[in-house]
Order: sequence, then structure tokens, then C-alpha cells
Amino acid sequence: MSPRLSVEPLTREAFRPFGEVIGTEGARHFPINDGTAERYHDLARLDLTAEGGRPILSLFRAQPRGLPMRVSIIERHSLGSQAFMPLSPRPYLVVVAPAGEAPSVKELRAFAATKGEGVNYAAGVWHSPLLALEAESDFLVVDRGGPDDDCETLTLDPAPLLVWEGVGS
Amino acid sequence: MSPRLSVEPLTREAFRPFGEVIGTEGARHFPINDGTAERYHDLARLDLTAEGGRPILSLFRAQPRGLPMRVSIIERHSLGSQAFMPLSPRPYLVVVAPAGEAPSVKELRAFAATKGEGVNYAAGVWHSPLLALEAESDFLVVDRGGPDDDCETLTLDPAPLLVWEGVGS
Repeated sequence: MSPRLSVEPLTREAFRPFGEVIGTEGARHFPINDGTAERYHDLARLDLTAEGGRPILSLFRAQPRGLPMRVSIIERHSLGSQAFMPLSPRPYLVVVAPAGEAPSVKELRAFAATKGEGVNYAAGVWHSPLLALEAESDFLVVDRGGPDDDCETLTLDPAPLLVWEGVGS
Repeated sequence: MSPRLSVEPLTREAFRPFGEVIGTEGARHFPINDGTAERYHDLARLDLTAEGGRPILSLFRAQPRGLPMRVSIIERHSLGSQAFMPLSPRPYLVVVAPAGEAPSVKELRAFAATKGEGVNYAAGVWHSPLLALEAESDFLVVDRGGPDDDCETLTLDPAPLLVWEGVGS
């Protein structure tokens, strides 16, 4: 029988070991443009220039998954952070494990982003591919470009079953 | 009588002298995550590390403007690019002028983003503050943080009247 992995709400506090939640709630902000806009400033630790790296900006278009789902693969980028910002308010899920050697299934955590917030994975943090829900979903992505292929994947066996209480089950 | 500035559609070609349009249309892309997502890759020239600079990620929340409107102030950041990605599909306007010394009103161009696309201003390009329309609108912003205050403003006198044919008039 597969281990089950319960989905928690995405909060700044709970996500702190893995990086930052990108959103206005609780963020430092100040007025700009003669008061016609508010700047929520410097929301993530972008770590993009190690070993000849440079910041790059891309769009990911993710196909939706159904629930419950199995998470069979996670990945990490040891040399740089990776920020995802949803371009719609649709919910999505993230599965993470602390930076370091291959994590056990017990170290995995799963979060549901339900308020249009983004996430920034710190360098080396293990994470699932994009887990969009409901419909095809676009994300703006800020990550590291470099001369190397900085992506390592890990197959989870057994693959845990992601369960979001009250959703899809 | 104020000069009038007509709003053009935002296209990659028309915007090229000022930076890049951030969107999927016409962009290089390839599948990732076992084919469950498509990556539209490296969509803007991020120029963020000059003179001790670093990439920073912020959210701007802009109040909507009405049309027609006067554009009385533009600004430039000589040391870094600045990317804006709307987090809703609502239209917004951008007013730009080429990098260089204070532009004349005749050098100004105005564009309407109507397809959820973002813009990246190249370093030194003159641009208006965020001109959201219809409702309060959030944008993800990737720009340069540095030890200096890299923002120069210019007051336009007379302030041109922005006219979007068929909208607000």
C-alpha cells in the first residue's frame, strides 16, 4: 500500500524551511508612482548567479492533474533558486523536501496554494514538478540559467499518494 | 492644447526598441516534467547585476486609471532592466521613449497590453508608471536592487493626452 501524503495550507511559516511564499500578505510595502501603486518589495531570496549563472525569466504552461494523485518524481537545482508565480488564481500543489541527500518519503511535505500566491524554492530544495489543478495554468518562472544542466531527479518508490482532505476524494 | 498620443497594440516587433514582450506567442518552447508542462524559455533580457546590483522580485499593486488620461511623468532606470508581468488578463497601457537624454513628446510611444502579456524595459528606456485600467491590478516585477537609487523622473510639459481609439472616449 502506498504511503499517503496529506496536503497542508501554504503559509509563510510552514514553507520557510524550503524558501519563500510570494504574495502581499505580511510583506513589506511602500507607495510608489505618486501613490498610484504599492510596491511589495523584495519578496524572495533569488540566488541565481553562482558558478556563471544568470537570472532568466520564462513561462511554464502546466497541464492539470487530478486528485488524488501519486507523486513519483521530485527534482532539485543545487546551484540556484527557482520562483513560480501563478498567472491565475487557480489552486495548485507543491511537494517539497529539505535540501540535502535523497530524502525519505517521511520528509516530504505537500502544500496547497489557494490564494494566487507563488513559491520560491531555495537552491537544493527537492520539489515536485508543477502540479496544476482544474485547468491548464501558466506560471511566470524566475530561475538560474548556466553552462551546466543543474537538474537532478529522484524517483520515489513507493510513490506517495497525495491526498487533499475534502478535495478530489 | 495638449499633444495627443495614440495607443498602439503591443506587439513584439513594435516594442523591440524598448525591450521585450513577455508571452508565449512566438516564443521558443520545449516540453518539461515528462511532458506535463511546456517551458517558454528565457523571454527577456534581464540586465540586473551592473554596479553591485542583484535581481529582486516584487509585486506592484496598481490603482486603475481612466481614459483618456494625461501622462505627466516618465522615469528611467539606467543601471538595470525592469520586467512587469500582469497577474490578471486585464488590459493595461505602457508609454515609452528610447533610452538616452530627455526625449521630446514626439518620441513617446504608447502600447496597450490586452492579452495578459508582460513587458521588460531595457536599461535606460523611459517609461510611464504602471497604467492599470478597469480595476486594481497586481504585477510581478523583476528588477535590479542596488546600493544606489537608480530612478530618474522627467516631467512632461505639456503632458500628452493618451487616447485609445474606441476606448474611454
